[in-house]
Amino acid sequence: MRAEIIAVGTELLLGQIVNTNAQYIAQGLADLGIDVYFQTVVGDNTHRLQDAIRIAKGRADIILFTGGLGPTQDDLTKDALAAMLGRQLIIHQPSMDKIEALFVSRGVHMVESNRRQALMLEHSDPLHNETGLAVGNALIEDSTHYILMPGPPREMKPMFDGPVKQWLRSVLTIGKPLYSKQLRFAGIGESNLEAALIDLIDAQTDPTIAPYAKEGEVALRISTKADYEAEAYSKIDEVIALIEPRVGQYLYAKEDIPIEEAVVRLLRKSMKKIAAAESLTGGLFAELLTSVPGSSSEFNGGIVTYTNEMKHRLLGIPLNQLEGPQAPGAVSESTACLMAERVRDLSESDIGVALTGVAGPAESEGKPVGLVYIAIAPKGAATLSYTLNLSGNRSIIRLRAAKAAFYRLWQLLNENELPNAAK
Amino acid sequence: MRAEIIAVGTELLLGQIVNTNAQYIAQGLADLGIDVYFQTVVGDNTHRLQDAIRIAKGRADIILFTGGLGPTQDDLTKDALAAMLGRQLIIHQPSMDKIEALFVSRGVHMVESNRRQALMLEHSDPLHNETGLAVGNALIEDSTHYILMPGPPREMKPMFDGPVKQWLRSVLTIGKPLYSKQLRFAGIGESNLEAALIDLIDAQTDPTIAPYAKEGEVALRISTKADYEAEAYSKIDEVIALIEPRVGQYLYAKEDIPIEEAVVRLLRKSMKKIAAAESLTGGLFAELLTSVPGSSSEFNGGIVTYTNEMKHRLLGIPLNQLEGPQAPGAVSESTACLMAERVRDLSESDIGVALTGVAGPAESEGKPVGLVYIAIAPKGAATLSYTLNLSGNRSIIRLRAAKAAFYRLWQLLNENELPNAAK
Repeated sequence: MRAEIIAVGTELLLGQIVNTNAQYIAQGLADLGIDVYFQTVVGDNTHRLQDAIRIAKGRADIILFTGGLGPTQDDLTKDALAAMLGRQLIIHQPSMDKIEALFVSRGVHMVESNRRQALMLEHSDPLHNETGLAVGNALIEDSTHYILMPGPPREMKPMFDGPVKQWLRSVLTIGKPLYSKQLRFAGIGESNLEAALIDLIDAQTDPTIAPYAKEGEVALRISTKADYEAEAYSKIDEVIALIEPRVGQYLYAKEDIPIEEAVVRLLRKSMKKIAAAESLTGGLFAELLTSVPGSSSEFNGGIVTYTNEMKHRLLGIPLNQLEGPQAPGAVSESTACLMAERVRDLSESDIGVALTGVAGPAESEGKPVGLVYIAIAPKGAATLSYTLNLSGNRSIIRLRAAKAAFYRLWQLLNENELPNAAK
Repeated sequence: MRAEIIAVGTELLLGQIVNTNAQYIAQGLADLGIDVYFQTVVGDNTHRLQDAIRIAKGRADIILFTGGLGPTQDDLTKDALAAMLGRQLIIHQPSMDKIEALFVSRGVHMVESNRRQALMLEHSDPLHNETGLAVGNALIEDSTHYILMPGPPREMKPMFDGPVKQWLRSVLTIGKPLYSKQLRFAGIGESNLEAALIDLIDAQTDPTIAPYAKEGEVALRISTKADYEAEAYSKIDEVIALIEPRVGQYLYAKEDIPIEEAVVRLLRKSMKKIAAAESLTGGLFAELLTSVPGSSSEFNGGIVTYTNEMKHRLLGIPLNQLEGPQAPGAVSESTACLMAERVRDLSESDIGVALTGVAGPAESEGKPVGLVYIAIAPKGAATLSYTLNLSGNRSIIRLRAAKAAFYRLWQLLNENELPNAAK
C-alpha cells in the first residue's frame, strides 16, 4: 500500500507555517506499516489542487489530505474532490446540529459560511471531528482511498488517531503491523543517552532502537513488526532488558507520558500533596502539573513571585535575604530553600518546590543567564537543593528548569527518599 | 515565475524529521517575489525522484532541491538529475581540495565516498557551501532553473541566503519584492472576522488580505509587491484604513506579537502593575505573561489555587462562598470577583485578574466543561466580570480562557477604562 499526503494551504506555500501535519501522519502510517512515497503541498486553488490529486492517483493507493475543510472561501478541498469525482456535496446532519448548537450555546450569531463545515461528499464516510467543527471524509473510488482531514493540528491529530486509523484498518489488509514501546528519560541529554547505548543501537536491527528528543526530555522508541502483539512485545522487552541496566536511573516511564505525569502518579501513590513557589519559571511548573487531568488531588497550588517585593509579601521571605550588599539575593540556594519551605507551610502541603534563577535575556543580580536553583522541601525532612547551569534562550531555560524540578521530584519519590506521610 | 520545492529524503517520508527547509525557502522566495505553487517530498529513490522532477518541470520555472548531496549511497539527487538531463558529473576541484584538507587537518582517514560531495553537473554553476562539504549546483536547461542544495538546515540556509539568491538575481528578471504587514486580533473568531471583511477580501487583489488562525487568536496578513518599501506600505496602510473602522475594536497589534505582549506594553505605558489568581488555567496566565521578556516590571505575581482549600487558605475566600448547598461555588462569578480583589490586595497591585472555570475532562460542581468566569479588579473601581462558554479539549479551554482574559485586559487598558494610577 502506497500513500501520499497532500497538504492544502497557501500559508504553507508562503512559508507562514511549517507542515508538521505531514510528519505526524507519516509517523502514524509507518506504525501501520503503510509506506509514504510522496508528500505534496498545494495552495488554496481548485485547479492546482485537482492537478495534484490527478498525479497522486497515479502513484498512490491512499491519498490523505489536510486542510481546506474550514468555513471560508479559501477552504475548497471537498469541493475540488467532489467536482473531480463527479459527486455531490451533502449535509452531514450530526455535524450541522453540532455547529448550530455551538453558536446557540455561545449566544453568538452564526455566520452562514460555518454550515460549509458540515458538508461531505455523497457516498462517503464521515470522520468525527472531536476538537473542531469541520467533519472529515473517507471514501474509496477506483481503488484509490481518499481521506480528508482538517488543517489545524489540534483537530487533525485526534481525527487521524481515531476515526482515520479505524477506517483504514476496516478497509485495508494492512501488512504486519508495527509495534513499539517508548522509553522516556529525564536528567540525561540525548547525546549522552546515545553514547551509553551506541553499541546496542548500532547492532540492533529488529527491534530497532531510535533515540529522539522531546521538549526538555529524551525518548527511545523500540519498534518491531510482528503478526501478534504478544510476539512483538516479548521481542521489545528483551531489548529493554538490555537498556535498563545501563540507563535505568533516568528511565521514568515505559510509555509516552511527560515527566510531570509520572510525578503526579507517584504523588498519588504515596498520597502526598505538593505546592510550588516559582520565580523564573513564572507559572510554568504549575501549568505543566495542572495540564495532567485530575492533578488537583495532588497539587495544592502555587505562588508565582516574580519580584523581590512579592517574594517578601506573598511568601514572607525576609527582605534582608533578598536585597543588600551582603544578601544572598533572590537567585540563591538559600532563597530557593526558603521559598520551598514557605510555600509548603502556607499551603499545608507535604512537599514544597521552588524555582529561582535567571531566564534571561539579561543577567540578574550579577548572576549569569541560565543559573537556576531548585529546592524541594519535604515536611519532616531536610530541604534538598540543586544548582543548574542551563543553556538556551529564555523559553528553553524556563522549560528545562521546570523539567529538571520534575525530574528531581520523580527521583526522590521513586526511590522513596521522602519521609512517609504516615510517619 | 513559478517555483517548486522538492525535498529529497526518506527520513521526511517516515516522519522522522519535519520539513522546515520548505518553510525557510518559501519565505525567502516570497520575499523575492517568486511564487511557490507546489512543494514535494520524495524519498531517496532515483526512479521516484526523476518522476517528481518530470512533474515539476511541467508546472514550474524554478525547481529547488534540498537533500541528497551527502556522501552516502542514499544521496542521489545529483546522479538522478544528471542522468535525466544526459549530463556528466564532474569534480569541482575547490570543493575536493577543501574535503581533503579537512580530513588531513583532523588526522582522520577519509572514507572514499566523501569525494562524492565534490561532484557537480557539467556546465553548471557551483554553489558554495559555507558550513559543510557538499557543493551546491545551479543550472538552466529548457528554460527550467534547477538549484541543488544540501538537506541539513545549517548548510542549506547560508547557501540559500547567499549564493542561491545571488544566482537567482543574476539569471532572472525577478519581479517586485513582497511586503506585508500582520494585523493581530483577539476576541473575535476567524469566521466572524472574515464575515465582517468578506467583501474587502474578495474585491481586494492588491494588496491581498489573507486571514489565518493562530493559537487562540486570529491574524490577517496584508501583502503587496512593490519596487520600494515606502510605496508598499502606503498601499498596505490604505487597506488597513478600510479594515479598521469595521473590526478595529478587536485589533490589538499591527505586528506579529501575542496579545499578552500587547497587554504588557499597555501596562508599561500606564505604569500599572498586575497580579493574577488562577484556578482552571493552573498558572498558564502567569506563564504567558512572564514569557514576555521584561514583564517583571508589570507583573507582580500570581497565585494558583487549584483547590477550594487553597482558595480559602492562600486567597482568604470564605469557605461558605465555596462549599455548601447554597454556596455560589468555586466556579462562579462572585468567586472570580473575590479572587481578583484578594490577589490585587495581597500583592498591592493596581489590577487583580482571576480565572475560574471547568477545563474538563469532567464537569465540576455540576457545572459544564467550558464554563469560565474571568474577573478584573482595578484598584479604586468596580470589579468587572465576564462569563465564557468555551469549547475544545482541556488544553484548548485553558488556552482560550487565558487569551480571553488578556483580551479583556487589553480592551480596558486600551480604552482607558481603568482609573488612573495617579488619581
